[in-house]
Order: sequence, then C-alpha cells, then structure tokens
Amino acid sequence: MALAGEFDIIARIFAPLATDASALGLKDDAAVLTVTDDHQLVVTCDTLVSGVHFLKDDPPRSIGYKALAVNLSDLTAKGAHGYVYTLSLALPREMDMAWLEAFAAGLAEVQDRTGISLVGGDTTATSGPPTITVTALGLVQHEAAITRLGAKPGDRLYTNGTIGDAYLGLKLLQDPSRAQAWALSESDVAYLTDRYRRPPIDTDAALLIRNFAKAAIDISDGLAADAEKLCQVSHVGAEIEVARIPLSPAVQKALQAAPDLLRDLVGAGDDYAALVAVSEGSAVLFESEAESHGVPFVQLGTITGADGGVRLLTQDGRVLALDRKGFTHF
Amino acid sequence: MALAGEFDIIARIFAPLATDASALGLKDDAAVLTVTDDHQLVVTCDTLVSGVHFLKDDPPRSIGYKALAVNLSDLTAKGAHGYVYTLSLALPREMDMAWLEAFAAGLAEVQDRTGISLVGGDTTATSGPPTITVTALGLVQHEAAITRLGAKPGDRLYTNGTIGDAYLGLKLLQDPSRAQAWALSESDVAYLTDRYRRPPIDTDAALLIRNFAKAAIDISDGLAADAEKLCQVSHVGAEIEVARIPLSPAVQKALQAAPDLLRDLVGAGDDYAALVAVSEGSAVLFESEAESHGVPFVQLGTITGADGGVRLLTQDGRVLALDRKGFTHF
Repeated sequence: MALAGEFDIIARIFAPLATDASALGLKDDAAVLTVTDDHQLVVTCDTLVSGVHFLKDDPPRSIGYKALAVNLSDLTAKGAHGYVYTLSLALPREMDMAWLEAFAAGLAEVQDRTGISLVGGDTTATSGPPTITVTALGLVQHEAAITRLGAKPGDRLYTNGTIGDAYLGLKLLQDPSRAQAWALSESDVAYLTDRYRRPPIDTDAALLIRNFAKAAIDISDGLAADAEKLCQVSHVGAEIEVARIPLSPAVQKALQAAPDLLRDLVGAGDDYAALVAVSEGSAVLFESEAESHGVPFVQLGTITGADGGVRLLTQDGRVLALDRKGFTHF
Repeated sequence: MALAGEFDIIARIFAPLATDASALGLKDDAAVLTVTDDHQLVVTCDTLVSGVHFLKDDPPRSIGYKALAVNLSDLTAKGAHGYVYTLSLALPREMDMAWLEAFAAGLAEVQDRTGISLVGGDTTATSGPPTITVTALGLVQHEAAITRLGAKPGDRLYTNGTIGDAYLGLKLLQDPSRAQAWALSESDVAYLTDRYRRPPIDTDAALLIRNFAKAAIDISDGLAADAEKLCQVSHVGAEIEVARIPLSPAVQKALQAAPDLLRDLVGAGDDYAALVAVSEGSAVLFESEAESHGVPFVQLGTITGADGGVRLLTQDGRVLALDRKGFTHF
C-alpha cells in the first residue's frame, strides 16, 4: 500500500507523538509555546538523508530513533533538556504506512526516554531519497547554557561515550566480511551496528554539563574534528591521550586485529557523546558527581594554549597524524 | 565550481544572515534564545522540494525568498511576528556557490522586511532534488496567539490577499502558451509568475489578526481547503460568496477568457494570504483599522453552523462544486 493522504498520516502516525498541549494536536499550522523568564531556549537542527546519514535498509524504527537522538545529543552538550521538536519528512511516494508506523515508534522511544515531544512539521513527497529534518528546542536555566566558547588552558577534557563504535558499525554494515578480518563475534557486530543505528542518549549528562562544563560540544563528526571546533571557538588547543580514549570491548578487539583503524575511529564517526572542558579546580567534584549520577565521564586530555592545535598523543609520546579531521558533507 | 566545504558555506553564505546574538554566529551546534514571560513562541515548519513546491529553473533568489516567506505566512496567521529560524538544505553536489549566494539573498530580503533572522541549521548532500526545510519561531504576546479554533456562526470571513495568482503563475510557467488562451499580456504573465515564485508578505496583518481575529489560517493549500480546515477545527461551516473573492486584474482577465478556471483557482493554489474570522460586533472597527494600516482585508463570506460545511455560492445562488479541495502531497 502506498501512503495515505497527508492528513491521515498526521492523524494516525504523528498526532499520538504530540503530547504537549502546545502542539494543538497537530491540527494547526503552528504550535504555541510558553517559555518563562527562568529559562532560555536552545535550538538545534539536523538533517538525515538516506544513503548519507543512515542506510537505505536500516530498520525504520532505528531511523526515527536516530533522527531525534542526534538532536538530543546537541541539546545535552548545551546542558539543556529536550522540550519540543518539529519533524519534516520528504518521502518517496512508494513508502508505506508500516514504514511510517515503525519510524514513529522510534521517535516515541526517544520521547519516552527524554520527555521531548512533537509540536509540528511537514510531510512532502520527493523523487529523491527519504530526507528527515528535526529542529529541536531545549530548555536550560537562564544563563546556564554551555557553548563551545569558554575552555581555558589547564582545563581537563572529558567524554561520556566510547569512541568509534558507530564508525565500525557502519563499516560492518557496508561490508559484513570485515567482521572476520577484525576478529569480531556476532554479538560484537550486533553491538557495533546497533550503535551506528541508535546513537546513545545520555540526558543525565546535561545536568553535569550545565553545572560543571566551561565549554562543550557533541561528537558527531569525529573526536578530532569536534575537539578542533571547540578549541577554535575557545581560542585554545588540546592534547588528547590516545591511551585514555574510552573504547568499547568490541572496538578494542578490532584494534588488536587492525591497529591502523585507530586513525579512522578518532578522525570520523557518529559517536554522539559529549566532549566537555572542566576546570582543574572543579574536576574532583565533577568526577564524583558524574559517578553518583551514573554518567561515565572519563578524562581523555587537557586544554592547552592555542599554538599546538589539537594533538592526539600516543603512549610513546608521538603525535598521531590524521588523514582527515572529521566528516564533511561536500 | 562545485560547492565549497560545509564550514565555508556557513561562514560565507549563512553567517551574515545570523544577525541575532542568540545565533552565536552559527559557530555552535545550537542557538540560545531568551524568551520572556510576556511572550509566547509560535513554531512552524515548511519543507520545499524542487519540482514540487518550486520549479527546478526558478531563480535561486526567489527560492530562498519563498522558503522563508511561506513560514512567515503561518506566523502572521497566528498573529505572531517573525523571531528566528533554522534552515536545512539538502543539495546535490553540483550546486555552486553562485546559486547559494543568490538563494541567501532571497532569505536576506525576507529578513529585511520582517525582522526574522537565521539561528542555525544543517547543510547536507543529497542525490535527490534540492530540499529546503525552514522551522520558524515567532513571538506573540502571552495568550494572544490566534489558532484555527474559535470561529462562531455569524462571524465574518476576511482575506487580505488576491486568490489564484500563484496558481495561474505556476500554470503559465509550466506551459507559456496558456498566456494566449487566457488573453494575458506580458506584464500580466510577469505579475502572475512572480506571485508564484515570491509569495506576498504582509506582516502588518499580524497585529490586526492578533487584535481582532477569533480564528485564522493562512491559505497555502487553496481557499476552499483552508476554509474547510479552519471550519473543521472550529466545528462550524462557512459560506463564501464567489463574487466577493478578491481577484487581481490579471486573474480577472484570465477568468473572462476561461471561466472554468474559477474552480481550480479556489480549489488549489499557494495564495499565502490570511483567512480570518472576525465577530460581527468588531467588524466595523476591524475594517477601519485594516484600512488605516493599509492591509487590504476584504470580507468574502460568513461563518455558519457546521451542517453546511464550506459552500462557495455563485451570484445566482448556486453552490460551486469543486473537483478537489486543495492540494495534498500524496
């Protein structure tokens, strides 16, 4: 069955996701939101194109999950929690309602975990690949939002996620024979591909970032590239110790089999963890608060002066040369 | 020349549009907005796909203009004024910087006329047609936003735009030989095609809508379809007098040559005018305020009980039968 009419799609598929009264049940062209003096709004926008940001054959539920999760990652890195979002879908005419229902179930899963809800959007036909844009609004207490600006030499650099899982997951989906070359078990492969399709969501990190971070960014274009972006805006440099980069057991296995992968893991990849600069003076309290909230922040480096840029140091003190610093789309 | 890198595009093309401090110069993943207790936020989202919502050969400047203007139309119908917007661009790799610069000039024109400014977005490559999503935020005084809900039998129905211009403009662009069949001059054709490419922006209407409307909607899927949507949410019906529908001189000429066009004009089309219900008691004041603000609101009908649905009455009292009520995308 091809798609039903746009109104039917909204009523059947998306209206159940519009749980906030501001959405007017998606029966209007716009949502009306109340924001108070106490809070600021954080606005972020990400577009996912089939074949670029997800694979054509990815399960639609994971596509919905990912479309919303990558925006939550941006909000979390600002110290904000999710409030509402708009959803734009440009879909080929042959997509069916079952696809849309599964897609919406992925959105619903993120909504349930984060409290964000749908307030509007647009659904159109396209002759091109499915294209999904989410614009998400988050709330943060007044003056508490964290940006890329504010890191100072001497600050410690932390992340709360393992690096490279999604990158290897993508490579395995593109060529399953790599599993053997990398000595990975079936469950390793399942873990890594799931991390590509379903980025981690760690909303508890938002509170810690808000309370402790001097600057933060989410790692969506690779650890090296996003560290570089944070450093550029803050006018600082950074040293990252390769041995301290958190790696999942599956990635550790793959690296043992193919050590050269390291360069790619840190140079590209959709990790969707936060990279956070914390002053030395608050580091002890930050670490103990992180532990008590169950957020696995790990120190992987230090902010330095701007001269050095971002340098990844191996255990024997060499600088890891990168072919490309992160993923760019053109 | 193909496109430069994403960062270059942002710095050269879009950063100049990010005039509000909240945008952080587009150097971050998110914008941080301050909204006060006095105002509510209105959120709307529209996606334009090349070949569906604009023509492949439309000038890029008019595409940028249209992408933002159609969102302003939604905000105006809510009684809100434009605040900030995000822009998502999925573009083929062969698009060049000249195209993007002209596109941005169209955005800038709408920004200058309305005060809205860019705060973020995403730029990605696609193998499909250029796809543009704008999510716009507007501000309206607390509790002053107007929705589709609230029209009552006896209310008067007004619009501030001429109907059918964009529809005929599109038909002329698709088949220029129609100009002769419709007895249109070159300047008529230029007027109508311009109305298709550059929807009207009438931000002064927002104040009048906020102060006088009981319900409102923007006409983006055809007069009949949008009247129907407003009536469904308000649980009312409407009678629209065909003879009172405002028509431009060019459309009047075409209708003389081809009277059957009427059905299509009111049944489909991107008019981007507001359709507004005003109580009988405030109609006189509304009309005089509209006149003094130079907003051409014209009464074209009356809200009735729900039983009749939306009926378009011809001068001899017949009900105009419509083949299709408005444009749906699937």
